[in-house]
Amino acid sequence: MHMRLASLLLAAALAVPAASAQVRQVDLIVYNAIVVTMDAASRIIPRGAVAIQDGRIAAVDAADAIAAAYTGRETLDAGGQVVLPGLINTHTHAPMVLYRGLADDLALMEWLQKYIFPAEAKTVTPEFVRAGTRLAALEMIQSGTTTYADMYYFEEEIARVTREAGLRGVLGQTIIQFPVADAKTPEEGLARTEAFLKEFAGDELIVPAIAPHAMYTLEARTLKAVRAMADRYSAPVLIHLAETADESKTSQQRHKMSPTRYLESLGFWGPRTLAAHAVWLSPADIQILARRNVGVSHNPESNMKLASGTAKVPALRTARVHVGLGTDGAASNNDLDMFEAMRQAAFLHKLTTGDPRAVPAPVALQMATIEGARALGMDDRLGSLEPGKRADLIVVSMRGARQTPMYDPVSHLVYVSRGDDVQTTIVNGKILMRDRKVLTLDEEKVLAEANVFAARVREAVGK
Amino acid sequence: MHMRLASLLLAAALAVPAASAQVRQVDLIVYNAIVVTMDAASRIIPRGAVAIQDGRIAAVDAADAIAAAYTGRETLDAGGQVVLPGLINTHTHAPMVLYRGLADDLALMEWLQKYIFPAEAKTVTPEFVRAGTRLAALEMIQSGTTTYADMYYFEEEIARVTREAGLRGVLGQTIIQFPVADAKTPEEGLARTEAFLKEFAGDELIVPAIAPHAMYTLEARTLKAVRAMADRYSAPVLIHLAETADESKTSQQRHKMSPTRYLESLGFWGPRTLAAHAVWLSPADIQILARRNVGVSHNPESNMKLASGTAKVPALRTARVHVGLGTDGAASNNDLDMFEAMRQAAFLHKLTTGDPRAVPAPVALQMATIEGARALGMDDRLGSLEPGKRADLIVVSMRGARQTPMYDPVSHLVYVSRGDDVQTTIVNGKILMRDRKVLTLDEEKVLAEANVFAARVREAVGK
Repeated sequence: MHMRLASLLLAAALAVPAASAQVRQVDLIVYNAIVVTMDAASRIIPRGAVAIQDGRIAAVDAADAIAAAYTGRETLDAGGQVVLPGLINTHTHAPMVLYRGLADDLALMEWLQKYIFPAEAKTVTPEFVRAGTRLAALEMIQSGTTTYADMYYFEEEIARVTREAGLRGVLGQTIIQFPVADAKTPEEGLARTEAFLKEFAGDELIVPAIAPHAMYTLEARTLKAVRAMADRYSAPVLIHLAETADESKTSQQRHKMSPTRYLESLGFWGPRTLAAHAVWLSPADIQILARRNVGVSHNPESNMKLASGTAKVPALRTARVHVGLGTDGAASNNDLDMFEAMRQAAFLHKLTTGDPRAVPAPVALQMATIEGARALGMDDRLGSLEPGKRADLIVVSMRGARQTPMYDPVSHLVYVSRGDDVQTTIVNGKILMRDRKVLTLDEEKVLAEANVFAARVREAVGK
Repeated sequence: MHMRLASLLLAAALAVPAASAQVRQVDLIVYNAIVVTMDAASRIIPRGAVAIQDGRIAAVDAADAIAAAYTGRETLDAGGQVVLPGLINTHTHAPMVLYRGLADDLALMEWLQKYIFPAEAKTVTPEFVRAGTRLAALEMIQSGTTTYADMYYFEEEIARVTREAGLRGVLGQTIIQFPVADAKTPEEGLARTEAFLKEFAGDELIVPAIAPHAMYTLEARTLKAVRAMADRYSAPVLIHLAETADESKTSQQRHKMSPTRYLESLGFWGPRTLAAHAVWLSPADIQILARRNVGVSHNPESNMKLASGTAKVPALRTARVHVGLGTDGAASNNDLDMFEAMRQAAFLHKLTTGDPRAVPAPVALQMATIEGARALGMDDRLGSLEPGKRADLIVVSMRGARQTPMYDPVSHLVYVSRGDDVQTTIVNGKILMRDRKVLTLDEEKVLAEANVFAARVREAVGK
């Protein structure tokens, strides 16, 4: 049958009201798709469809089978393109998009002390954080991220904007030893965090979390207080870990232990804990993370750009540590495109291991989806297209010269796709972007507002 | 004055026919642009314009100054976006786009022997090469490449298609020891090459070149014959050099010398010679390349994906070797996007040197433009926007969420731009793509034709 005709007939069939008890009506059916499920069998359905009801996936199957069993109150033609789980960015600092490209190619301390710290001291306010999060949310929706883990200040503002934008977030209120924009002391930070955990408890989209900055910027008693609070509220914990050689050296000098081992000695590691970067790990450190079931967020672009080093991803995976991918803040990357993170992970570990088989495309894609969900302890809900999971999915175009020919959709997703190829983004069953038009944010307004704050940033650093 | 009104008035001024002797009429004026010239002073003109006459740049200046001195038979509003020299891809195998993503993540020999060699043996014909080059040309025009250096078979077909597409090419007919699709022996390859050099001598867009495959796939007498022919015709020479540790080992075993030194011992190195990859070089090898003024094509993505190693770009640059950037063929990358090559070069050398100041954004951009031109011995004509040079330029959008805010256009070009951000591509004064619409190729037809050949490739490798 002619492809377009088949597609039209299928669309008609999907939209017919339920005629018999066997046909169930659902909210939305995404059809005419190559469905990359990321389920345990890595199933790819060449002509597939996804049925969605109440924000969850009702069924994933061949389009014909879905058409026989379901009708949709709404239908979405994926145009023969690839449908896959929404991408999970396991580490970022959303509002820092407002510092993107402010300064690059500097030694870390010069970058922080001449640009980032002065800019943050003079510009971070609730309004700034809201404007930055709107801009970040726009970029994430446009590039196929549906869940992100965040660590920043005024995280309750980030949570509100994220919810309005319709994105899913594991959002961590930062706790740090020195005075910052939203807390003068770590005690104040802990109090803010507790209020934050209470405010967003049980939210459908927001998982409130605690974000102790790092072992070298916090005293032992604060780190212990974080663990106690996390246990009390069953809250996730997000922390930077062993990002740089300096951090390892500092830990050895102060505690005669690696950062990982020091945190272990404090009883810090616990359930639903995510360590970002985890570059400087010994085999013993990796064993600690594996034993404590700590997830890792690998940030290849940031680690390369800041010359931090290479996380031992193959060794972490061999030890069965769940490794997700992150972009880090856009001040050190400089974007939030998870396709770039996938490609970079695949490239980087081939180079550093000398083995072109390291982190093959299917593994890079797992890291951006189901492994990211596991690293966040949310694989019961996220990371693959399977019945019962949250309906977070994206449509990615393979139509262009760059994607032609297509022998293998997974190869293309990792080695040639970019965020801009995402056509449609759905979170919790709600369409946030359709055919590149973002529906939950006013793009022009968000960009204009961002430019107002950028002028203040420029002033703050004298640029 | 209101920006849009100012722009309209400027457009009106630019289009007025020459009223006085002081005002010169030119073919095309590109205005309302942030002009990144890549000239010796790295001049950036915030509100600039470029005047073009007879395929060459007549003037580059502030828009007001251009409006006072020139009127354009045609004008092009860059919409306040960035205009820069077209990108120069110093190493690719254009028709191999038809093998993109056919097989990834394999050890080099398995990849070559199970996929690439069988596919090439069964599918490479003049028709295949034409279809592949059309697809590659489409992708290059869409992603801002205006000049490319190529090594493949049936290079005269590649040259014809490249000329039709309006791109500029330094196109090398491959010479190799074993029988290939277009020549049974290297002698036949040399004869083909000589005919090719004659056919395209003096062409405005095509520079015919000789492409001896590599030192390990050619006998000494053939390499010497290549040098003699290059001297006779003043033709550029393109060769793979020291791509893998295996090549170095082979050279040591056969010749007790590095590949670079072996070629030096044959008298192979000469003017307008480009060595692609150049990964495994000793300090002495680097000195040879510097002394012989050999250009280098650095291919960071291919070198990472195939786990070939890291070229010592900072050391090469210190030795004043001109290092351009290349994508390599799309079978090993998997695309022809020079923005990705720039970003990867900036990331890679920070990581491997441990210094975040290595290959800063301005250097990565130089490598993709003026240094690429120098590596090809064409910096008298290409690589920067300066009066007298060929009018090869592109307009890159900075309008999106991903590019907001913009503190520094050069940072964005390297760290957040992608090929798809290119709006307009001009080669030799001719507009090849305007507002994402390619004017010299029928996109739908090119993609359909590519898919026909892809079916043959699938069959050839049993996939």
